Amino acid sequence: MNNLVISVDAMGGDKSPRVVIEGLAIAAKKNPDIRFLLFGDDAKVTPILNQHPDLKKVCEFRHTPEMVHNEDKPSQVIRNRNTSMYMAIDAVRKGEAQAVVSAGNTGALMAISKMVLKTITKIHRPAIVSIMPHRTGRYVMLDLGANTECSAINLAEFALMGDILARHALGITKPKVALLNIGTEEMKGKEEIRQAAQMIKNSKMNLDFRGYIEPHEIPNGVADVIVADGFTGNIALKATEGTARLVIRMVKDAIKGSFLAKLGLPFMMGVILKIKKTMDPRLYNGAMFVGLNGLSVKSHGGTDALGFSVAVGNAAMLVRQNFVPSIREEIEKIDLDELSQEAIYDVY
Amino acid sequence: MNNLVISVDAMGGDKSPRVVIEGLAIAAKKNPDIRFLLFGDDAKVTPILNQHPDLKKVCEFRHTPEMVHNEDKPSQVIRNRNTSMYMAIDAVRKGEAQAVVSAGNTGALMAISKMVLKTITKIHRPAIVSIMPHRTGRYVMLDLGANTECSAINLAEFALMGDILARHALGITKPKVALLNIGTEEMKGKEEIRQAAQMIKNSKMNLDFRGYIEPHEIPNGVADVIVADGFTGNIALKATEGTARLVIRMVKDAIKGSFLAKLGLPFMMGVILKIKKTMDPRLYNGAMFVGLNGLSVKSHGGTDALGFSVAVGNAAMLVRQNFVPSIREEIEKIDLDELSQEAIYDVY
Repeated sequence: MNNLVISVDAMGGDKSPRVVIEGLAIAAKKNPDIRFLLFGDDAKVTPILNQHPDLKKVCEFRHTPEMVHNEDKPSQVIRNRNTSMYMAIDAVRKGEAQAVVSAGNTGALMAISKMVLKTITKIHRPAIVSIMPHRTGRYVMLDLGANTECSAINLAEFALMGDILARHALGITKPKVALLNIGTEEMKGKEEIRQAAQMIKNSKMNLDFRGYIEPHEIPNGVADVIVADGFTGNIALKATEGTARLVIRMVKDAIKGSFLAKLGLPFMMGVILKIKKTMDPRLYNGAMFVGLNGLSVKSHGGTDALGFSVAVGNAAMLVRQNFVPSIREEIEKIDLDELSQEAIYDVY
Repeated sequence: MNNLVISVDAMGGDKSPRVVIEGLAIAAKKNPDIRFLLFGDDAKVTPILNQHPDLKKVCEFRHTPEMVHNEDKPSQVIRNRNTSMYMAIDAVRKGEAQAVVSAGNTGALMAISKMVLKTITKIHRPAIVSIMPHRTGRYVMLDLGANTECSAINLAEFALMGDILARHALGITKPKVALLNIGTEEMKGKEEIRQAAQMIKNSKMNLDFRGYIEPHEIPNGVADVIVADGFTGNIALKATEGTARLVIRMVKDAIKGSFLAKLGLPFMMGVILKIKKTMDPRLYNGAMFVGLNGLSVKSHGGTDALGFSVAVGNAAMLVRQNFVPSIREEIEKIDLDELSQEAIYDVY
């Protein structure tokens, strides 16, 4: 029997449970070391699961009478222990699984994950983090929306967790860490960012801190870990997604409107496929909630089976790399509250 | 003699005064109704100005012994009245010119403009605004960096000024106004954004308010005026610029690396030129400082003559359209402080 178990909310996402199960089938083929614990509505899940006999062999299914809906408020869903999402997360708390993946309501997934798995001792706030592409490689950015407002200590914790994630997930020995800001001069931006810079510079954090980074520099790969409060990170992420789509859309529209360009298309197919593959949002699916006693991964609700399988792959990789215990261990070595006091003193 | 006078800081920007003067030459040809008041170092400006006899006819040059440098701090530059930037701005205060254009240090230009021109009575904070492209047209976004932190009342003022700008500069009769946020549900985002939404919804503001907009929706043209605090606006702007450059760079790199694609290039030239023209940052050059008694326009420091001429064109257009008096007139009709009190009451 395999030791790597991932629990899955079969009912989350726009086309659940079909996309979820098809995604698991892809993930199972790619990762023969994973077993799945699947939670969902028997009547909907079983007929589809029966179409995937290979997956069924490594998948334990448990019926759940209810599910979390997109419009449900976090304050409601945390009280209902009978949803597929709740039970999938609870399996991690019980030690039956090492990570949970859901394509459901982000706010609900964060709220239940926080309540059930609890924040790691000494971490003040968990964060949402994604792996994203730059010109020559990949980087991680956090927080992407868990915390609308953040103190310096929160940002310093994100830097630390991002550093660990970049080492484990991107295989970078000494990740370059930077704080997202509107300028690179020391006095730029908000007070909490300047204080966080002071904290992160401290030798006790032991990070390769590169100071501030402006959003237009991210694609050049000057940093491996980009740290921001959840509001700013979410704005930067969505501006990036929207612009990438706009440019690609404009190229498509322009080609469609030109007879000559259509003639040239066959020559360009290789280039178009290459760009498509690098920019494919499915390959960057799977936002990770970090800072909790257990790993919770949020798949995009509108993704397809390939996208869902990538989110599952992220979860499995971080479990194999002992990501959660690493955070616990490294945070133990640092007294963030003390660093925070020093930083406030330094800024003034 | 022409009545439309624009004062210009000849010494601002990376390749000044050459780029500035060549930009004015282009602007003068396009806008025969403008006269220029040019401030700068005689030894550097006159030889270049002499190469443009047509421009020289509509240009009054005044020697200034000093200039603002990129590394100068706003707190220093506001004390020196002998710089080309200071004197160009001061010409607007004296009524010798109706607008000023500079490609110099943004912080310095804002600081001197605020001190010399003064904020319009009843406006709490000026803002930086730009005109930008979406899929089917153009929109304005503000604030882009003048105010790192903003209250609800500041955001509501930006909405009002953005609405006036969109009417005057984009010719939209009733612009759609939206607040930049990380979700579209009413309770999303920061408190000041929710309070601003309450204020802007008020019938006294008389705006076509469309609620919250997320950054990835901007390219779809769902709003003509995007309102944000200066930190968030600057992050969104730079993320947009960086991503557009990344995608274009990736396409270029992919074509360079493919023999077949190079063969197909001649078919694609029309499409490439069209995209280049729509995305050309020079065509969106000229960030406007709004909310002051006089118009101050910041050209990108690294732009070329065409880019600088676009910034000058923006300034001239807003002067012709009576933009500054319009703000003064419309802000008189509204008691923003009273609306703010009502909004705070409504949110709780």
